[in-house]
Amino acid sequence: MADIENNNMPKIAVSLGDLNGIGIEIALKSHEQICKFVNPIYCINEKMLNQASKLLELNVPESFTLHKTKGYFKINPKKCSKQSGFYSYHSFGDAINLAKKNEVQALVTLPINKEAWAKAGIKFKGHTEVLRNHFKKDALMVLGCDKMFVGLFSEHIPLKDVPQTIKTKKLISFFLDFAKCLNADKIAVLALNPHAGDNGVLGDEEEKINKAIKKANESLKKEVFFGAFVPDIAFSPKNRKEFKYFIAMYHDQGLIALKSLYFYESINMTLNLPIIRTSVDHGTAFDIAYDTKIEKSKLSYINAVKEALKLIKLKA
Amino acid sequence: MADIENNNMPKIAVSLGDLNGIGIEIALKSHEQICKFVNPIYCINEKMLNQASKLLELNVPESFTLHKTKGYFKINPKKCSKQSGFYSYHSFGDAINLAKKNEVQALVTLPINKEAWAKAGIKFKGHTEVLRNHFKKDALMVLGCDKMFVGLFSEHIPLKDVPQTIKTKKLISFFLDFAKCLNADKIAVLALNPHAGDNGVLGDEEEKINKAIKKANESLKKEVFFGAFVPDIAFSPKNRKEFKYFIAMYHDQGLIALKSLYFYESINMTLNLPIIRTSVDHGTAFDIAYDTKIEKSKLSYINAVKEALKLIKLKA
Repeated sequence: MADIENNNMPKIAVSLGDLNGIGIEIALKSHEQICKFVNPIYCINEKMLNQASKLLELNVPESFTLHKTKGYFKINPKKCSKQSGFYSYHSFGDAINLAKKNEVQALVTLPINKEAWAKAGIKFKGHTEVLRNHFKKDALMVLGCDKMFVGLFSEHIPLKDVPQTIKTKKLISFFLDFAKCLNADKIAVLALNPHAGDNGVLGDEEEKINKAIKKANESLKKEVFFGAFVPDIAFSPKNRKEFKYFIAMYHDQGLIALKSLYFYESINMTLNLPIIRTSVDHGTAFDIAYDTKIEKSKLSYINAVKEALKLIKLKA
Repeated sequence: MADIENNNMPKIAVSLGDLNGIGIEIALKSHEQICKFVNPIYCINEKMLNQASKLLELNVPESFTLHKTKGYFKINPKKCSKQSGFYSYHSFGDAINLAKKNEVQALVTLPINKEAWAKAGIKFKGHTEVLRNHFKKDALMVLGCDKMFVGLFSEHIPLKDVPQTIKTKKLISFFLDFAKCLNADKIAVLALNPHAGDNGVLGDEEEKINKAIKKANESLKKEVFFGAFVPDIAFSPKNRKEFKYFIAMYHDQGLIALKSLYFYESINMTLNLPIIRTSVDHGTAFDIAYDTKIEKSKLSYINAVKEALKLIKLKA
């Protein structure tokens, strides 16, 4: 830990995600680069780390500081396994605890596998759900990159359940949390229906969204929320020049735009929590795990670390 | 008509759309360029044309051939009016008739205003609905540009009504029509739910979509339809390299991607009809009408003409 104590860069905890996937390769290959602006502490023990680095034929950098997450299993590259799911859950849990105890100023997560968690009997669907449950807070799921961020008003639910989630009070509260957490003063809010409902002809949830926009602006005593925008032209070149922050009513409405435009750069973050958490915006990619083909995936991880740094500064 | 008779380029009918909007400016300013590959016939009478060109301070090109759509009203730039709605409907009707009588080989439409049509008592919501009604055919709505085309399985309906439209038989028929009309042999089909339903946890309509993909491939005796793809990563750089044709389950699913990526280039076309119809992919843009600011909007029109030409050749 000597190096870390001697500089003023913030400490971050890194949870390694599913060790049968690409996370550990990303962490090892990006270490030198992220050490230019943060001091990472990796939630993995030596035995697991050495096993992975040997499989990858990569050296562990000398300054690779560990928080020794307990447990051992045989890494099975590309496979969804109970043991791997279980270990990734504990790596994440340790990282949360480091953040809660202020031993680190933020937490950056590498991808877990939802099916592996289910196999391990973990009742949560993913990172965000764990955090929401742990802190008993309405955590916000926001994805993006420095060019554009999208907040998801509804997340992992069937499309048919989306329209009934549109409720004015809940929208207002989401809008205000989003603006506060990101310190954003100009936000584009999307409508729900095609053509924003065309004056009620193609759906009427826009009434509630427009009302929420009005009320949220009134509550902030300034115009921060704009819209509701016709969804398919909300991300026009003109709008993207004018807005950096967008609120989508459902998962694919926001993420289809984001991933069409900024597939490799994007990250995921959970806001409105007592701790700072950012994450890569992709999965375990079992298909390419341990094939040393992760070059493009490094970008999302490095951006996630950079965004954590920005949020640390915003909070300070 | 002398010029037209003397060359072998196909004739197309152009309906001018709402004359209070930007359509007529686009037509006048693009005439020279489109005459390099088609012979356009414009559905507007001299009195209306002269009125518009005077307001725009533009000369009418000498070779501007007219089919004299009857009617007269005072053009009111930027305004939604009953008279303008009525005239745009008749310009479109005349263009359809020219195509039906084989006096032209295709029809290209400039934007009408849906509200103006409603004011004029026209019972159709737009061009596609008129065509569907006129020809009593399951017309397909496809949007795109030469880099990517997206077919919309469901169109102008509220989002809450989308899931119940997902039916295997209807999907199969749509898939096969789409492949045939575009002569496409590799098509990416999108799922409906986030993460393609995550094995039923986030919705189960994917079962029907996957079944339809399988059956449609069986019926063609080759693998043409792929998926169902997770919607938010369907338009990844890798997928866009591999696929040019996509089928979206609903309006914004397809158009958010298309318009995020190719806002100005995109066009709209109606397939599976006895006639060929392509269109610009934008509205009347009343806000900039008669301000001579349409330069960027010309691209969609010129692409619509080019695509009509391709479809004419495909049909020949």
